[in-house]
Amino acid sequence: MRKQIILSAFLWVIISLGTFAQQALWGAAEIISPEINSDNTVTFRFQAENAKEVRLTGDWLPMDGWKPGYIAMTKGEKGMWTYTADALPSELYSYSFLVDGIKCTDPNNVYLIRDVASVTNVFIVGKGQADLYKVNNVPHGTVARRWYNSPGNGMMRRATIYTPAGYETSKEKYPVLYLLHGMGGDEEAWIALGRTSQILDNLIAQGKAKPMIIVMTNGNVDQEAAPGESTLGFAKPTMQLPHTMDGKFEETFMDVIKFVESNYRVKANKANRAIAGLSMGGFHSLHISRLYPNTFDYVGLFSAAIMPNDKVKAKAYENFDATLKAQMDNGYKLYWIAIGKTDFLYKSVTDYRANLDKMGMKYTYVESEGGHTWRNWRVYLSQFTPLLFK
Amino acid sequence: MRKQIILSAFLWVIISLGTFAQQALWGAAEIISPEINSDNTVTFRFQAENAKEVRLTGDWLPMDGWKPGYIAMTKGEKGMWTYTADALPSELYSYSFLVDGIKCTDPNNVYLIRDVASVTNVFIVGKGQADLYKVNNVPHGTVARRWYNSPGNGMMRRATIYTPAGYETSKEKYPVLYLLHGMGGDEEAWIALGRTSQILDNLIAQGKAKPMIIVMTNGNVDQEAAPGESTLGFAKPTMQLPHTMDGKFEETFMDVIKFVESNYRVKANKANRAIAGLSMGGFHSLHISRLYPNTFDYVGLFSAAIMPNDKVKAKAYENFDATLKAQMDNGYKLYWIAIGKTDFLYKSVTDYRANLDKMGMKYTYVESEGGHTWRNWRVYLSQFTPLLFK
Repeated sequence: MRKQIILSAFLWVIISLGTFAQQALWGAAEIISPEINSDNTVTFRFQAENAKEVRLTGDWLPMDGWKPGYIAMTKGEKGMWTYTADALPSELYSYSFLVDGIKCTDPNNVYLIRDVASVTNVFIVGKGQADLYKVNNVPHGTVARRWYNSPGNGMMRRATIYTPAGYETSKEKYPVLYLLHGMGGDEEAWIALGRTSQILDNLIAQGKAKPMIIVMTNGNVDQEAAPGESTLGFAKPTMQLPHTMDGKFEETFMDVIKFVESNYRVKANKANRAIAGLSMGGFHSLHISRLYPNTFDYVGLFSAAIMPNDKVKAKAYENFDATLKAQMDNGYKLYWIAIGKTDFLYKSVTDYRANLDKMGMKYTYVESEGGHTWRNWRVYLSQFTPLLFK
Repeated sequence: MRKQIILSAFLWVIISLGTFAQQALWGAAEIISPEINSDNTVTFRFQAENAKEVRLTGDWLPMDGWKPGYIAMTKGEKGMWTYTADALPSELYSYSFLVDGIKCTDPNNVYLIRDVASVTNVFIVGKGQADLYKVNNVPHGTVARRWYNSPGNGMMRRATIYTPAGYETSKEKYPVLYLLHGMGGDEEAWIALGRTSQILDNLIAQGKAKPMIIVMTNGNVDQEAAPGESTLGFAKPTMQLPHTMDGKFEETFMDVIKFVESNYRVKANKANRAIAGLSMGGFHSLHISRLYPNTFDYVGLFSAAIMPNDKVKAKAYENFDATLKAQMDNGYKLYWIAIGKTDFLYKSVTDYRANLDKMGMKYTYVESEGGHTWRNWRVYLSQFTPLLFK
């Protein structure tokens, strides 16, 4: 049979081209961009024969007030615009092109991450902190998107759950970190922008963090799931959602814990539960940990919003001082507060610390450079997780 | 404590704006694009004050030979370019803008899917076939990215595994479909472009498909994982990879089956194993099913490449006729072949069918409109899975 129906080498070329032409609506030329050079300089390339001006904007460039900063690219042969950035510190960076004033993603870089309602290209510069953000040759955990029942919210809800390498085949029980996103985020934020699975795979392989389960919930109780993953379809994400900070998430958080503790092999006790979050997720972590004041031995507040809007009247926010005192009196191993020096929440966190000092509630404080950025939150995660469950 | 450190309503606005400005490098204005109107017409919007020409290209437009077709958009007030497409049949569509000749993704649509080395915006028009591609209010399965050991390839490899709603809490054993991608694809292809989890959630909820586990492997044996998910980092994906069709994947496929059958609650017998794939994955399914000729009761060849390049000498491709006859003699319940009328592989599939007829090997044949497209492969998946494990 083989001879009659053979596909010649020629036909295989056609298959490749044909499939490519149909699969890839617009084939990209063989341009490498960005190119991370061996000295950590980074070369960007963008082909635009007829453009008058191509600029590059990226999150390592100084801001122009509230606007992103821009760098002009240089036009070379065949309309190839290039720019090489000076050696960059190890980090995960975002960037985009501005072509005659129009934002364009890089057609030669398929790596994009959504942050709320924006999608931008990313790249990683290694040889430093960001080596933790890379997939390295180490055992890898499993990342699952799983739906659980939240009776308190009257809906099935979606969570992203990291189980460490070996979880499925070992007979052991594991500790759990509940890791919460900020405003505009969802259950995809920490795994995508936060590089949680890469950071934990690497820290665990290095013996720096204990193997743990990480549960990344969706803190917007009005949502079943992240944008595009619910019955709302491909709706445009928004920063502000109803009921994000009205106490409902905190009051129904036991739904998450019950689900995890009845569906995973976990050590279901205070010594093996941690909760942490960034910005609004820090707010949620603060309130959940004092609302259930004998539940978590580890609390992490990353660039945390501290107190609710004065107009919000919710049971979860009543008896603040008393519940915080109960949490203190019950004891815990770590209450970890981190914030950047230029974070717009710096003052409220400073005030909160002063009050903790006044009431004698112990905490560990880490002050970093920078502001309210994922760059800081990835660092905080990589600093916080090695302190857990020891 | 509350009064001293309260965040005023005003501050919350700042939080929103501040976080947004920092998180989203480029905030998009409140433009809705694409807008799926109630009559299934679709309006696209793109703001470009200074552009001379904005065109739209999408996979529902007639091709211009080998190039995509374009439609001119109309400039309105404040540089808002618009175009409304006539009512579109229910489908998942891809599109992009061409602004003065430069391809731009839609800054108002965060939904993009990578196909090999291209990333394009997508949208879904419902009220028909594509309702199966939507997240509906039905029980949802779990989607896990999980690494398994492949001794035959000497590496850990990544797979995407769908377990149906209820898997984790039931005590039942489940049948398994191994679902393979095409050239240039990987373990992300079927879950992203193929909408596998949505299709199965919906078909199972409707009682049309049996609850089943779906294992989406990576058929490129040189790769540990999809682009961006391996130690190669954020490397540019390529259509052609070494060793994709040299028999190694077929010869080591038992690594996958062994992993699945020792790590999941499955019915580990022929009656409860299916294998199917598109294009190169159809090729793999054909060869794996005859190489292990008493292993699968269900085989699906979607727009399948049929025979290896004559120059490829691999054990897996020897004794073709004899192993196929063994597969026939051992018996099976379904050998399902589907192809589009304009597929460039149409003739080789026709020739293959003629030979199956000659040897008396039974199969079910489905001939659809269209060519070598994800549009067809989603339809084939939704037609094939209801026939399994009955």
